Amino acid sequence: MRIVDLIRRKRDGHELTREEIQFIVRGYTEAQFPDYQMSAWLMAVLLRGMSSQEIATLTEAMLHSGVTLDWSDLPGKKVDKHSTGGVGDKTSLILAPIVAAGGLLVPMISGRGLGHTGGTLDKLEAIPGFNVNLAPDRMREVLAKCGMVLVGQTEKIVPADKKMYALRDVTGTVESPALICASIMSKKIAEGIDALVLDVKTGSGAFMKKEADAVHLAKLMVETGVRIGKRIVALITDMDQPLGLYVGNALEVIECVDVLKGGGPTDLRDLSIELAAWMFYLGEKTASVELGRRLATRMIANGSAFEKFCEVTRLQGGDPESLRDVSKLPQARNRREVRSPHLGYVQAINSEQVGIASLVLGGGREKKEDTVDHAVGIVLHKKVGDAVAQNEPICTLHYNSDARLREAESLIASSYQISAQQTAANPKLIRHVIEGSFTPAVHAY
Amino acid sequence: MRIVDLIRRKRDGHELTREEIQFIVRGYTEAQFPDYQMSAWLMAVLLRGMSSQEIATLTEAMLHSGVTLDWSDLPGKKVDKHSTGGVGDKTSLILAPIVAAGGLLVPMISGRGLGHTGGTLDKLEAIPGFNVNLAPDRMREVLAKCGMVLVGQTEKIVPADKKMYALRDVTGTVESPALICASIMSKKIAEGIDALVLDVKTGSGAFMKKEADAVHLAKLMVETGVRIGKRIVALITDMDQPLGLYVGNALEVIECVDVLKGGGPTDLRDLSIELAAWMFYLGEKTASVELGRRLATRMIANGSAFEKFCEVTRLQGGDPESLRDVSKLPQARNRREVRSPHLGYVQAINSEQVGIASLVLGGGREKKEDTVDHAVGIVLHKKVGDAVAQNEPICTLHYNSDARLREAESLIASSYQISAQQTAANPKLIRHVIEGSFTPAVHAY
Repeated sequence: MRIVDLIRRKRDGHELTREEIQFIVRGYTEAQFPDYQMSAWLMAVLLRGMSSQEIATLTEAMLHSGVTLDWSDLPGKKVDKHSTGGVGDKTSLILAPIVAAGGLLVPMISGRGLGHTGGTLDKLEAIPGFNVNLAPDRMREVLAKCGMVLVGQTEKIVPADKKMYALRDVTGTVESPALICASIMSKKIAEGIDALVLDVKTGSGAFMKKEADAVHLAKLMVETGVRIGKRIVALITDMDQPLGLYVGNALEVIECVDVLKGGGPTDLRDLSIELAAWMFYLGEKTASVELGRRLATRMIANGSAFEKFCEVTRLQGGDPESLRDVSKLPQARNRREVRSPHLGYVQAINSEQVGIASLVLGGGREKKEDTVDHAVGIVLHKKVGDAVAQNEPICTLHYNSDARLREAESLIASSYQISAQQTAANPKLIRHVIEGSFTPAVHAY
Repeated sequence: MRIVDLIRRKRDGHELTREEIQFIVRGYTEAQFPDYQMSAWLMAVLLRGMSSQEIATLTEAMLHSGVTLDWSDLPGKKVDKHSTGGVGDKTSLILAPIVAAGGLLVPMISGRGLGHTGGTLDKLEAIPGFNVNLAPDRMREVLAKCGMVLVGQTEKIVPADKKMYALRDVTGTVESPALICASIMSKKIAEGIDALVLDVKTGSGAFMKKEADAVHLAKLMVETGVRIGKRIVALITDMDQPLGLYVGNALEVIECVDVLKGGGPTDLRDLSIELAAWMFYLGEKTASVELGRRLATRMIANGSAFEKFCEVTRLQGGDPESLRDVSKLPQARNRREVRSPHLGYVQAINSEQVGIASLVLGGGREKKEDTVDHAVGIVLHKKVGDAVAQNEPICTLHYNSDARLREAESLIASSYQISAQQTAANPKLIRHVIEGSFTPAVHAY
């Protein structure tokens, strides 16, 4: 088998066999052929696409490029959730404690923020002392003790993805649904889970701006999961405005605590409960999604979800007191309000711009090497559908440095579209659910 | 400007600007970005295509990556011919002397054979002493003295093509009409010519097996030439069977001498005269192609074309006596006849297989590094349409080593399709002519 022939076959639109895809992934991971052949193949994949069989095979080949986790000695189903990323998307910190409190195991491996979207690891690190880099034995201990663990990616899990993603990033081959699907699914399946809930975001703050693209990716991921033998569902959810009201690392932890204590904004609470409900159902803890919703709601109401969050924080070296008294979390020195230029209704909020504003204040990363200021961020006072008076505050910026304040202010001001026309509040949060039967079926929600 | 953005733009089907294409060609030639970005871009070009404006810009950018030749101090128009390559295609050795004898200048830069197709340089080197590697000053002297010169590619001419072709060869990006066009046209225009005649082969022995592909490439090359301000024409010619009767380096020189002395097979003579006629016409030596045909025919009839071939041979260090007495050319030690298994008519000859048979005998190269045996080859006794008796010789193999004789015999035997049905002799040799008006017009011939 020669790599140049496999490049040609994909270039000409042929379906590659299992052996051919394994040859490519193994050969590239082991540096048996150079980057310039892999990038040509990746571009051919991007432009020619892959069948769902090819994607499943690619996912498995990538999965087996490194170690996979095995929790089969721990009793109970292992479940996880993956989000394609958004602004203010902090549901992991809420649903993992809910689901662990409800009796399932959540061995969650998350990423860091890059660009306008935040990352779960950065949010966790806003909690003083919280350690996301656990040795494998300690990860097992924490999971066994409290039913959940929240850690970062290691070099040993799916090394093929690490090498392929670095190449895709500089060769214009990131935006391939087939490659995105295999990248996400290989890493999630390597966690050793039985079931997976996908939160595929669409809208102005999402990677997929168009709903059709989000649905397409979701179908690919669900079909891949089914082919590999996992219980799986994808929820297509709204990212046309930030989720919740708080954007920024410590600020988002505060909002998660609010929800876990029974408060918080409706959209964030509803989505967290919905995702947790699907995890309960797919993890066979409840006989239906509706029973899952009830269980999730109860885990919040009786305080056990919040206690679970405090417990995992303690087990991972963090200070649970900063959750019981959130004034102990990092706080920015300064506040600046952004006010509405005129009376009207909020028509739309460009979430990507809000995310960039937070990044500009220091809360995110432009490059992987950048350090993050956990204290800074943005608190939204108005969301789509809300009425606003002239000069009324629409947001408050939490900042430490004046350096790029002006830029953040201007991004926030222009991200709000305010006009006289009355609009519906609470735009539909969950747009579609794609359940894992062999051929994914899309149904309205 | 960042290369990753230009990869994305081409990937998404956008037309690149002059500055963008220049940035890519210059940046790659000067190693300002790595092979893996160039190969992704090349694959995007292959799958998305290029507009004729982009191809012309790419051609010019490649042209200016190195030195270009300038003969403006030498009086007279400079013309050349380029063939996309075939089996038994030896017209360069015939038409260059005809055109130089007729008063135009032919500064011809040729290539070596690779795979099943032969190369002009290998054929010339079958002439004892013939030197195709002339220093620039000597090249000018020879051209000035006898109106023609026959040399190989140097490192200094279009270095971008050398680097790009090596990468295309290993990344499945050879078969892009846009890239093929820019590669050919940049090298030909770098020769400092005023007019160019293209011989685009189609059929079983050609790179483009399908006529539509040959016409497509020819249109691209003609439009590129016109955009760059050259007089240009493309002839789409038959390569469904070998051209002439002799395949192999010294054997092909013998056949060229036959034609230059007024003999030789009809197809080879007709095509050589036709291509020479277009060179005379585009080089403004004659007022029409028909007058070009007459001039070419006269140059053969009065012996001046043959004398020109002897003259250039002497000036380039070769022995003209080996042309006057071809028994002085290298000769293989052994002959083996291949005979027809039954009575019938030749329906078709797979030219590619004939070319490979010659390669197998040692007359060509499988890899660039292989050395060539100039003496070996194949003499065809029968062509398409010819009647053949049972056991009558259809070919004679000229060989030096028994090692792969059996393989060559079997290739030749299976390349001939012989059956009872009578077929027309002399299949149409010139299928279309594509003349260089701004929008190329194809007309039947």
